[in-house]
Amino acid sequence: MPYRAPISDFQFLMDHIVGFDQVAATDHFADATPDMTQAILSEAAKMSEDIIAPLNRAGDLHPAHLDNGIVRTSPGFAEGYTAIAEGGWIGMSASQDVGGLGLPMTLTTAVNDMMASACLSLQLSPLMTQGQIEALEHHASDAIKALYIPKLISGEWNGTMNLTEPQAGSDVGALRTKAEPNGDGTYAITGQKIYISWADNDFTQNVCHLVLARLPGGVPGTKGISLFMVPKLIPDADGNPGIKNDLRVVSLEHKMGLHGSPTAVMEYSGAKGWLVGPENGGMAAMFTMMNNARLGVAVQGVGAAEGALQHALAYAQDRKQGKASGSGSIIEHPDVRRMLTTMKADIFAARAITLMNAVAIDMALATGDEGWKARAAFLTPISKAFGTDVGCEVSATGIQVHGGMGFIEETGAAQYARDVRVTTIYEGTNGIQAMDLVARKLMDGGEAAFRILEEIEQGAEAAKVTQPELAEAVWQSAETLRETTEWLVAQDDLNDRFAGAVPYLRAFARVLGGHAHLASAVKGDAARARLATFYIKRMLPEHLGLLAQAREGAKDLMAISADELAA
Amino acid sequence: MPYRAPISDFQFLMDHIVGFDQVAATDHFADATPDMTQAILSEAAKMSEDIIAPLNRAGDLHPAHLDNGIVRTSPGFAEGYTAIAEGGWIGMSASQDVGGLGLPMTLTTAVNDMMASACLSLQLSPLMTQGQIEALEHHASDAIKALYIPKLISGEWNGTMNLTEPQAGSDVGALRTKAEPNGDGTYAITGQKIYISWADNDFTQNVCHLVLARLPGGVPGTKGISLFMVPKLIPDADGNPGIKNDLRVVSLEHKMGLHGSPTAVMEYSGAKGWLVGPENGGMAAMFTMMNNARLGVAVQGVGAAEGALQHALAYAQDRKQGKASGSGSIIEHPDVRRMLTTMKADIFAARAITLMNAVAIDMALATGDEGWKARAAFLTPISKAFGTDVGCEVSATGIQVHGGMGFIEETGAAQYARDVRVTTIYEGTNGIQAMDLVARKLMDGGEAAFRILEEIEQGAEAAKVTQPELAEAVWQSAETLRETTEWLVAQDDLNDRFAGAVPYLRAFARVLGGHAHLASAVKGDAARARLATFYIKRMLPEHLGLLAQAREGAKDLMAISADELAA
Repeated sequence: MPYRAPISDFQFLMDHIVGFDQVAATDHFADATPDMTQAILSEAAKMSEDIIAPLNRAGDLHPAHLDNGIVRTSPGFAEGYTAIAEGGWIGMSASQDVGGLGLPMTLTTAVNDMMASACLSLQLSPLMTQGQIEALEHHASDAIKALYIPKLISGEWNGTMNLTEPQAGSDVGALRTKAEPNGDGTYAITGQKIYISWADNDFTQNVCHLVLARLPGGVPGTKGISLFMVPKLIPDADGNPGIKNDLRVVSLEHKMGLHGSPTAVMEYSGAKGWLVGPENGGMAAMFTMMNNARLGVAVQGVGAAEGALQHALAYAQDRKQGKASGSGSIIEHPDVRRMLTTMKADIFAARAITLMNAVAIDMALATGDEGWKARAAFLTPISKAFGTDVGCEVSATGIQVHGGMGFIEETGAAQYARDVRVTTIYEGTNGIQAMDLVARKLMDGGEAAFRILEEIEQGAEAAKVTQPELAEAVWQSAETLRETTEWLVAQDDLNDRFAGAVPYLRAFARVLGGHAHLASAVKGDAARARLATFYIKRMLPEHLGLLAQAREGAKDLMAISADELAA
Repeated sequence: MPYRAPISDFQFLMDHIVGFDQVAATDHFADATPDMTQAILSEAAKMSEDIIAPLNRAGDLHPAHLDNGIVRTSPGFAEGYTAIAEGGWIGMSASQDVGGLGLPMTLTTAVNDMMASACLSLQLSPLMTQGQIEALEHHASDAIKALYIPKLISGEWNGTMNLTEPQAGSDVGALRTKAEPNGDGTYAITGQKIYISWADNDFTQNVCHLVLARLPGGVPGTKGISLFMVPKLIPDADGNPGIKNDLRVVSLEHKMGLHGSPTAVMEYSGAKGWLVGPENGGMAAMFTMMNNARLGVAVQGVGAAEGALQHALAYAQDRKQGKASGSGSIIEHPDVRRMLTTMKADIFAARAITLMNAVAIDMALATGDEGWKARAAFLTPISKAFGTDVGCEVSATGIQVHGGMGFIEETGAAQYARDVRVTTIYEGTNGIQAMDLVARKLMDGGEAAFRILEEIEQGAEAAKVTQPELAEAVWQSAETLRETTEWLVAQDDLNDRFAGAVPYLRAFARVLGGHAHLASAVKGDAARARLATFYIKRMLPEHLGLLAQAREGAKDLMAISADELAA
């Protein structure tokens, strides 16, 4: 069941739907010519198809494991990682100042999407490193940048994020890990961190942990948190890995999926660390990393969904069953066709949203414009939650398309569903994303939201000539979404927003998906118009139920007591 | 995380929502007095809580395995099975003529729900046996009934269903297993069957396989299929297990979940079998078994959802995180409260539908009335698909409530999701259920559907006095559902019905759930009214998007070619 990268979808989305031409037209991204873009997509596709995808099953069957304190990775992962590093894919969006290729995040997003389809558990490692590079670029001292970033980009070293502690999950501010000055400009880090992805491996020369900890006198909560670089091996005077730091992998988790990605409990016992960013400024630095990572996780969802779709499609085209017309395969049954088309239409919508998000990030960087920044910030939680929900839903439908075979592990369909399941949870649960959207991201009085809604309405106006029926449906959905957005902005009690945050976020994504599909119907060929018609007529109406829920507020909900729920 | 059976929910639903009083008022079920009902619920609860639930994790961690051709079951399962058998729970709805208790299916449904919450993989074994008993009651000769049914009821022997073959899944008619007359009234069965649940074990004295096979000259398709009883050990003259039959477990599947339930590939090599029902009448007999089993599988979904809800609730009440008011636990966050309330409201709706279905089955049996039969037949696919979808969705939300812990297997939340996943597939995929609903179950011109819709509208009329807002919403939803039902009935091309079958079925369930919740608001206490308000205002509107999809027909969908999907 070989993976084939959907290059033409990426190219179409970039050329016609998400406004990548604006990015390529900036001085900052002058290198991102059409030729370069095409070359990147085609090279990344080749590597993902030929080298990464064949590793996926082994990652599930032979999980990373702990062997005398060292993490041994799944068969072939070392070679796969080397291919990713040597391809230059880790640092492709890092700035050229620090040795990166300085290419747009839009391109990195497409490449990450492909690698995620091919092998989610391996792809998580470069994804974490990409986030670390970005955090260091923005917040680290020149000395740390010079020492670490080139080795992270080359893949000689890899990066991790250490936020969570047993009592501090979504509430990062509750963390207890301590950092005490050693008197020489370094700090002694002491504490336990959990859920550390790719905390160790047997293929990089060093592992660079970015660790959140509290300095003496750091106030409780997030404002008293600082960020530290804590390498597994302390670099010597030449910058080579030297003596072992006082940290260790205590254990690896036994997870529902993503078995190829080691998830560790880490113990820091006075480990030597270097401050990144200002004292007590750890959360700001961490948010740089997390915003990048949130889009990265969104793309994991989309990529996994693509893998699941291709897997299910191959089965449905091959499997003969019942009185199907045409080929006689189950794909000729309307309900199987409906499942597969739903999967494909949702992937197109979610992928469009992640690429729109990446374009906004690129434009913000290239222009410094606050509007682009606000747009990127607004789209990030939508990308993350919708992209990963689509990952879970599409992979669940993929199992269903397989019938009984879907429940048998050897088929591989179940692995997509098990692997992608964590993406709705890590980097901020999808509930946290939705709360971020309706609280922080509407603090501007809805300005960023209304700008996007105007754009959708303008798109629908323009589409009325060639696609009147579809355009009207999208325009109407944007109006309903606008009314709900106005209602949310008017609620002073944040709980009234939070109660409907998840359905609101999903409705926003549904309507944005309608916008992308409508543009696809206008600018694409007949096949794209058919897919858009399916989405807009059959899937977009979901927003009605979602928005009804989003406007109900908290009162009735919170009146249902915990005791009642448990009764 | 102990399971507590929701006895008060069962009692409330039976007393006030699903019309169990009608069942108890029939002569046929005169034994089902209020005292008896209460005693049954309380005894089954006790066993499920104290004996069955503690086995659930071991079933996952120590799967059934094949040892020299014999299936070794998970630790404690033998004792659990014995408790179920000795409690009389296997044959509780078998008629008294054959040694059963002759109690209503409504009560069996409640008991199966509890056992499914406690341990889905073990509960599947008595569920299969219940289906076999019913098939034998209706179709077997007196000799077979007398020999097999008492031992199936006592739990000394257990029953299986052998339908599927590698090339014959949803399309049962494609099966190739042969039955050749031995000349002594018995038959030699030869062929391979797959996905055979509980095909063997190490705790019953015999395993009774009901096997679909084709007699010489049997026409192709389902009309040439006959049903055979093929015991693992051939009963001797005294009816005790004698010499080994020519059948064997070839292998067990490695599944996503339900590890405690052995799923076998079976090889029949001229095994001795006895005809059940007439020659070439196998499908009719099998449908008896399958209709019962479909409701049984629906209840597996509901039961698993209940287990997942209780698990998530306990976590949410215990886990402290963030600036939550009140208890300081995450249950005080509106989004967590929303997730848990959604889970609870959906379980109530799905459970009400399965019990309505069971009441219709009981009334059909007790009165012989065609209207009740049609109602039971109409509700069965809705129960099966909605009950199991709720199982999957609620258990997925249960993982989400746990945050990062949900992805860690030791927590147990993931097991609910993995175990219940197969229920949307086996006993006819949920797509097949929906096709059955819009084709066969609307062949009466929608009569059964419209009767139910009238009942919903009458319920809404009656509720207008005390719950005007909720009643109006439910009435309106029934009207929209009626329009779509009329549209479906008017479509001559079945593909136009099939294309929207799944969303139509779900919308029907949503509206039926609204009906049940509305009755609950009218007849229950304030807490029930609050839950009903949540469901009707926030969840019922989902039907709008679903029904829009149900009315779109097949043309646009089937115009999207398989090649386009794969492009």
